[in-house]
Order: sequence, then structure tokens, then C-alpha cells
Amino acid sequence: MKIYDRPGFPNPMRIRIVLAQKGLDSEIEFVPVDLIAAEHKQPAFLAKNPSGVLPVLELDDGTLISESTAITEYLDNLDGKPELTGRTPREKALIHMMQRRAEAYVLDPVGIYFHHATPGLGAALQAFKSPQWPGRTEMGEREGEKAKEGLRYFNEILTRQPFLTGETYSMADITLLAGLAFAEVAGIVPSGLDALAQWQARMAGLPAVRNRSGQNFLPEDLKRLGF
Amino acid sequence: MKIYDRPGFPNPMRIRIVLAQKGLDSEIEFVPVDLIAAEHKQPAFLAKNPSGVLPVLELDDGTLISESTAITEYLDNLDGKPELTGRTPREKALIHMMQRRAEAYVLDPVGIYFHHATPGLGAALQAFKSPQWPGRTEMGEREGEKAKEGLRYFNEILTRQPFLTGETYSMADITLLAGLAFAEVAGIVPSGLDALAQWQARMAGLPAVRNRSGQNFLPEDLKRLGF
Repeated sequence: MKIYDRPGFPNPMRIRIVLAQKGLDSEIEFVPVDLIAAEHKQPAFLAKNPSGVLPVLELDDGTLISESTAITEYLDNLDGKPELTGRTPREKALIHMMQRRAEAYVLDPVGIYFHHATPGLGAALQAFKSPQWPGRTEMGEREGEKAKEGLRYFNEILTRQPFLTGETYSMADITLLAGLAFAEVAGIVPSGLDALAQWQARMAGLPAVRNRSGQNFLPEDLKRLGF
Repeated sequence: MKIYDRPGFPNPMRIRIVLAQKGLDSEIEFVPVDLIAAEHKQPAFLAKNPSGVLPVLELDDGTLISESTAITEYLDNLDGKPELTGRTPREKALIHMMQRRAEAYVLDPVGIYFHHATPGLGAALQAFKSPQWPGRTEMGEREGEKAKEGLRYFNEILTRQPFLTGETYSMADITLLAGLAFAEVAGIVPSGLDALAQWQARMAGLPAVRNRSGQNFLPEDLKRLGF
């Protein structure tokens, strides 16, 4: 199997945590994609994923799988022992619900804020992201506020339980972790979200998050990589 | 089990097809929500689903599940015989990938076009949808073009296979069917998409789509309901 990605970015981070959790790191060949140069918006990559986003999983038979939820469903179910996507109908439903909320309330709006209300990732990529770049747009600002509200929503959930769907972490927590890291880079995490901060520390202590081939998917790395 | 919805609208349509496919119609109590009056944007409904969208599934123990993919995962796995969300890791992955594309390429952009570039659903709801309403926005127009491109993408896929992920229909096809019905109501389906039209007829002939308690979830109904 191959993964086309660039370490340190939010969606690649999601899948690298899944790979570590499932012990699949050594079976994967990582193929770097030059995200800053907008390589993923060029025809060669769009033929692999018409959405033009990372990561993409390529199976040995050439099958291409994109969308982080779809890749996670594949990897988590490969050994017949799902740990991150739920076992019972109720678990599956709550995990998919909270994972979609983590995208819609945090990860996606932070992305829009980042590309439409900050310098983003520079000229090569921004041409594909924001027609108004450089410059802050009203939509970008609005989505930034939405992301802050989303973080407050999850903080409230996490005052009542250790992880987003209960006692163990899941795909939903991984999505929120990536969204929170992105929000930190973008500088829009509200202060005083103590339950969220405690959850983030709890996540950072998980083996799959902490010990991924010596890499650590916390905000410092995103910054080090020029995010 | 209860479903909070309003028949004839795209996301309620998705779940009603799933219920019919799984033979669960008779076990469900449908609770109508006055979407035109923006009932789903008021505090009582937001307590059930903070996203403020339909449908919501309420289990007998009070558990609330929203997001159509999450509800579909629940209903499809209840009998231990998933038909719409995949059995193998590869099927699960391809179905989740194409279902997300059907949302991101068609259903979501049609919704943005509808609420930001047409009269939408009138004053009560539009206040929650578009700050610029009434009036066409550049973003609305751009998303309409994106939806047309999405429909062309799926047309091309469907020249090669009968359904989005192969020989049988899945959650992904249901999402696209809802997106296409919405695009027809909004008047933005490009002409000449023959494979897509043939697929739509194939879908319309499926028992779960055709015979849902005498209701038919085709565009005429959306129009009849004032959509």
C-alpha cells in the first residue's frame, strides 16, 4: 500500500495516527506530495483524486481511496477488528456523527479561515484556494468565528466524558485533534477551554499519537514544517 | 425509533430510502418538523441537533443521531447484514469515498446555490441561511457551477458502471439521487448527461425508491411540497 501525503498537515495527520493505531506503519510506502507548490492541484495528482486533496491511499491492485473517513474505514477494518470506527450499530453511528461534526464545526471552517483570512500557504497554492487572495474576506472571518464556536461546543462535550463518543478514543477524536492543531496554527483557539486542553493532552499521550516513527503530530511540527 | 424530518427534502429523502431498503418503515414514528418556518433553527430542535438540520433519529433510549451518513450506518447495520454501507473494508472505503464526493461535489454546492443565488425557501428560513438574502451572491453562483461540474463527473463515472461503486447501489447512490433531485428543483442540471439520466431511471425503479408507503421521492414531489 502507498499513501500520498505530506506529514504535519491536518488530513495526513489523521491517517498517520490511524496507521500507527493499527500497527500498519511498516506496510505503507509514503509518497511525498509538494503541497506548498500545489502539486495536488495539478493533472497528474487530480487523476488520482479529483478532489485535489491529501492524503490518498493506493492499494496494491491500484485502487485509489481518498477522503480521510473512507481511508480510515478501510484501514480500521482490514484486520476485522475495528477500533476507531465502531463495532455496534450505535457506536458506528455516534462515531460518524461526531467525526462529521468535528469536520463541519472545526476542521473545515478553520481551513476556510486559514485560506481566506490569513496569508495561507503562499501564492502557488492560494491561487487554487481563494480568488480574493491576498486579503481577508468576510466569509473567511465568519468561518473563523464558526470554528471558535465549534471548539466551545466540543469543550462542553468534553466536560462530561473523556473522549467525544465516550470512554475510548475514535476516528471522531482524531479529526478534532487535527482541527484543533490547525486552529492553533491559525491562532484562533479561544482561551479558557480547559476540558478541551485536558483532552488534547490525553490524546497526545496515546501511543499512536506519541510514537509514530519518531514523529509527533502536535502543533509544533505543523509550525516546523512551515504551516 | 423516531425520525424528525419533512418528507420530500433531500436529506430526509436519503433516510426514507434507507428505511425502505431495510424494511424498517413500520418501526419508525415520523415526527414532522416545519422546515419552511425554520423550526429546525430554534432552540428546542437545536437541543436535539446542534447542526440545525434534518433528519434526526431518536432511539428508544433517547439517544439522538444526526448526519445522514451516521443514521445510515446505524440503520444499515441493525440487522447485522449491511446492504448500503459495504461489507468488506474495500467496499466500505469506496462507498464512503463516493458518498462524500456526492455530498461535496453535488448536494452541498446545490444547497449553497439554492440558498445564496435563488429565492430559496423564503424569509423565515433564509435569515438563517444567507446574510445577503434576497439577492444572488458570487459565492452562490460559483457553487452552482461547481455542482454542474460535479454532475458531469458522476455522469462520466456512470458511463462505465451501473452504480457509483459498481454493480449494486449503495449509500453513495442515494446521496447523489438526493443531490440530483435538488439540482433539478434549482434548475441547474446540464443537458446531455445521458449516463446520469439512465442511472436516475434505474434508481427510480428500485423498490426502496419507488414504493415508500405510496410516496415517491422524485423531483415532482419536491416541487409539490413547495421546494
